Amino acid sequence: MSTLTGKYGEEGERLLFRVLNNGDFLGNADREALQNADSNALAASIAKRGMRYDLTVPFARFVVMHQNDLQFPFKRYQIQPVWRADRPQKGRYQEFYQCDVDVVGSTSLVYEAELVQIYDEVFNTLGLDVTIRINHRKILAGIAEHCNVAEHLTAMTTSIDKWDKIGEDGVGIEMQKRRIPQTAINKITEILKKGSLESLSGTLNESSAGMQGIIAMKEVMQYLNAGQLHNTFRFDVRLARGLDYYTGCIFEVDANDADMGSLGGGGRYDDLTSIFGMPGTSGVGISFGAERIFDVMESKKLFPSSLSSAPQILCIPLDKETMTFAFEVTTSLRNQGISADLYPEPAKLQKQLKYANQLGVRYVAIIGEDELSSRSVMLRNMDSGDQEIVAAGQLTSLLSGKLSG
Amino acid sequence: MSTLTGKYGEEGERLLFRVLNNGDFLGNADREALQNADSNALAASIAKRGMRYDLTVPFARFVVMHQNDLQFPFKRYQIQPVWRADRPQKGRYQEFYQCDVDVVGSTSLVYEAELVQIYDEVFNTLGLDVTIRINHRKILAGIAEHCNVAEHLTAMTTSIDKWDKIGEDGVGIEMQKRRIPQTAINKITEILKKGSLESLSGTLNESSAGMQGIIAMKEVMQYLNAGQLHNTFRFDVRLARGLDYYTGCIFEVDANDADMGSLGGGGRYDDLTSIFGMPGTSGVGISFGAERIFDVMESKKLFPSSLSSAPQILCIPLDKETMTFAFEVTTSLRNQGISADLYPEPAKLQKQLKYANQLGVRYVAIIGEDELSSRSVMLRNMDSGDQEIVAAGQLTSLLSGKLSG
Repeated sequence: MSTLTGKYGEEGERLLFRVLNNGDFLGNADREALQNADSNALAASIAKRGMRYDLTVPFARFVVMHQNDLQFPFKRYQIQPVWRADRPQKGRYQEFYQCDVDVVGSTSLVYEAELVQIYDEVFNTLGLDVTIRINHRKILAGIAEHCNVAEHLTAMTTSIDKWDKIGEDGVGIEMQKRRIPQTAINKITEILKKGSLESLSGTLNESSAGMQGIIAMKEVMQYLNAGQLHNTFRFDVRLARGLDYYTGCIFEVDANDADMGSLGGGGRYDDLTSIFGMPGTSGVGISFGAERIFDVMESKKLFPSSLSSAPQILCIPLDKETMTFAFEVTTSLRNQGISADLYPEPAKLQKQLKYANQLGVRYVAIIGEDELSSRSVMLRNMDSGDQEIVAAGQLTSLLSGKLSG
Repeated sequence: MSTLTGKYGEEGERLLFRVLNNGDFLGNADREALQNADSNALAASIAKRGMRYDLTVPFARFVVMHQNDLQFPFKRYQIQPVWRADRPQKGRYQEFYQCDVDVVGSTSLVYEAELVQIYDEVFNTLGLDVTIRINHRKILAGIAEHCNVAEHLTAMTTSIDKWDKIGEDGVGIEMQKRRIPQTAINKITEILKKGSLESLSGTLNESSAGMQGIIAMKEVMQYLNAGQLHNTFRFDVRLARGLDYYTGCIFEVDANDADMGSLGGGGRYDDLTSIFGMPGTSGVGISFGAERIFDVMESKKLFPSSLSSAPQILCIPLDKETMTFAFEVTTSLRNQGISADLYPEPAKLQKQLKYANQLGVRYVAIIGEDELSSRSVMLRNMDSGDQEIVAAGQLTSLLSGKLSG
């Protein structure tokens, strides 16, 4: 808990799962908290362990602990479950897997480009069609500056973050609620609607933060133009990524044609490790939401049929005497890379063929006493019903041909 | 907690981690337990979630929930972290990964043989030299019966389980402590010392349980003789596997020449699913202890050097103008399967070569203005210092040759 406490803000603190101490935990409990029935104060004295809330804080702790052994810039990926006491709903779980990729110890924008390439390659490999959006926090700061609402930057960013959900008018109302003057709101909205890097270059040319953001964006674009991306990639001035610790580029990935929040996001943070006593280390990272990706792939039927559990062939022993030979044939097929299964006991042929059909196998190898004595099998195509005697030693090569044909 | 409670015996119950309810958990706490400072009674009212303790109980629950959709015999493997409030020590962790393989819905001994094959193949692939031992609970029951101490079966089994640690004399003393008569102890010890299946066949020929165990052992052996195992595999009448729910064959795997408890174990359980209301389903399963396997592999330096994080080549941009071309070269190498990295900013050659040495890369591709204008790189072998100009388009094929040569 000492590692986790104070790292995730007020809401995060509320969503942390704590693990009850084992044994007589009341023996060391905070008496005063007990008497006052103060759950929050009591928790600290009866739960010294907490459940992992994200991968970023543990990673920051790791980097600080091993700072003298690591080679910087240091790259790592990490895939682990995390837990949050959120109300479960579509795309939101109390236990879920995060997949993080980060580079710390360099401010080079090469890494922003590499992380976009990773998103692109992963989603391309999974067969998912996505849009990768990128923006820069300093461009948002430049817009606030240009519109004379630099002191409202957080309010502006939080409002813009909802553009996808509530649209231009909704964002306007949000900004009004947060006491941004109407003249500024009009200006901000105009800028966000134009939104191209070119137009921003003109608009923000007197904001130093804004121009830093634009130059950084252009450098990242230039790297990515040198490669070739499979998915849509675009600058989006309306991408804001809520109230995070991001200070530079920010990323977000959405599935095209799927009603599911973002499949991933990330950005650059100027000072990740100072919370553990190592200031001034810049990093940039992205995260994949494994369960959401899984859900979208399921709904789009993108899991390949090779993941189906049906073996390619089922060996069928007709009586007790042929069991060992059938086991030997199965083992030999497997050793040669064929996905083979064995009906586990001698049974009537009809029963075994029914089982083979339920499994969905394309071939069965029937093994009776004749086959045992000639060390062969009766290979049967389950679709056509065609059968042929095949010597056990020739089974793999024959079957490989049929399966690939 | 309702899934976990009552499944792991008294000790297991003590080692279960419970998760404190979020929010004002004291609001719904058991008043009486609070007043009596009864930690155990209170826990039930303030912690409705528990942490996974093993994979077997969740699996049993899954099978019962999906019994109408599953094809039996049903095979599955499962790899997940589990948590136990044990005192941490060498080879024992509070959080560790279990890797389970089970088959339910058949009593066929084919599956015992298949599971031994899985152990054998996995450890062979990992390069670990292990001994796989097997025994049958009914043989132990037969020995107890033969020695007229059937009512002491549990005491006898628990004592025998310690043979590896405390030896023949120690086991004798254990049995004395547990009130097994000395004449029986002498008889049991004699039988255990002979220990071959052949001698047991003679000794136990009037015990129906004992003979069932011996016949089963012989059938499993016969299957396994039909294949070829890489590791030592043997019957061991002194293998007992503590006080588990096993009722048939039992397995255990130990690393040869390593001071680490068992790396895996398992066995057949006649009635796994009855705790969830589905009686009479036999199953057999094995488990791998991932952390122990990792520890042994580390100590024996068995992790392949290909897992080292050093890329095969580092691209070195000498100035700002060459960054984009260097990024393009790196991307192209990666797309063609070369593990390549890019120094993230222009820097003096000496500084970059020093970094390359620290990383341990064998080759660097130096990219200055001459190389940029001719779309080539200066390929340098870090060991010999040899350099040559290579056209960017030829780099992958040339490098692949050098790396494999």
